Amino acid sequence: MSRDGEALLELGEFIPYQLSILANTISRAFASHYTAEFDLTIAQWRVMAVLGRESGLSASEVGRRTAMDKVSVSRAVSGMVRDARISRVDDPADGRRRRLRLTGAGRAVYRRIVLRALAFEQELVGALGVRDRERLAGLLPGLQRAAERVAVGTDGDDS
Amino acid sequence: MSRDGEALLELGEFIPYQLSILANTISRAFASHYTAEFDLTIAQWRVMAVLGRESGLSASEVGRRTAMDKVSVSRAVSGMVRDARISRVDDPADGRRRRLRLTGAGRAVYRRIVLRALAFEQELVGALGVRDRERLAGLLPGLQRAAERVAVGTDGDDS
Repeated sequence: MSRDGEALLELGEFIPYQLSILANTISRAFASHYTAEFDLTIAQWRVMAVLGRESGLSASEVGRRTAMDKVSVSRAVSGMVRDARISRVDDPADGRRRRLRLTGAGRAVYRRIVLRALAFEQELVGALGVRDRERLAGLLPGLQRAAERVAVGTDGDDS
Repeated sequence: MSRDGEALLELGEFIPYQLSILANTISRAFASHYTAEFDLTIAQWRVMAVLGRESGLSASEVGRRTAMDKVSVSRAVSGMVRDARISRVDDPADGRRRRLRLTGAGRAVYRRIVLRALAFEQELVGALGVRDRERLAGLLPGLQRAAERVAVGTDGDDS
């Protein structure tokens, strides 16, 4: 780990780096199925995927569900409001809170991308093999819990 | 998977989503150890981590190693050139290519973050448990290869 006594990070063995490369490779491979055709960024698709399942979330709830930072969520939402794919409505019960919903046009795009997402996942699972797929599915919840334990207390600021 | 015949994406079971949340949770947890103190974004740290190991890469080589898109790499590099943490020098052998290197100041920051990265990984591994850690390490290379197979031919444009 050292050369001339210098600490070096062997990225090929550094789990945070490997996971980040893996997630980016997959996100970008899938993005090629929707960015150009639907004029949607990766961050916008993440927001859309969450709102498609849970309508009426606030931007900070979307941030928590996607583990995206505030600035990225806010930029993605603004773009989709401008493109009339999301509506942003004041919450009558809480004036500081604004609820986000897919518009009809937004939901139409969501439906079409969902079909591609399901096909894409099949392709990925096919490339993985059933055994590794099952191992991965078995590991992911524990990994996420471990990551959240490590994050607690170190990630108070949502930046 | 359907409600009133409508396709829905069950995000909790969708591997690309789960991996992306996991990688984001870990990246952000680690980011809390360097962003404020060193005034470095997550994207900038990724670029720095790669250049710390391999000096003299071009921006597109950095993009390939981090699976980041061109715009994110370019924005991160510009910020670090402005902050005098990276130098950008024309390649005498190829006029269109510019080589990126950490400056002395950049390398000093790199060294300090590396020590924290190694400590952070220990913390994460501790939260994971040895068995899951070994399973994950065993799975990651195959996962990355599968992701790259799926990406081939669908990710020609680097956007």
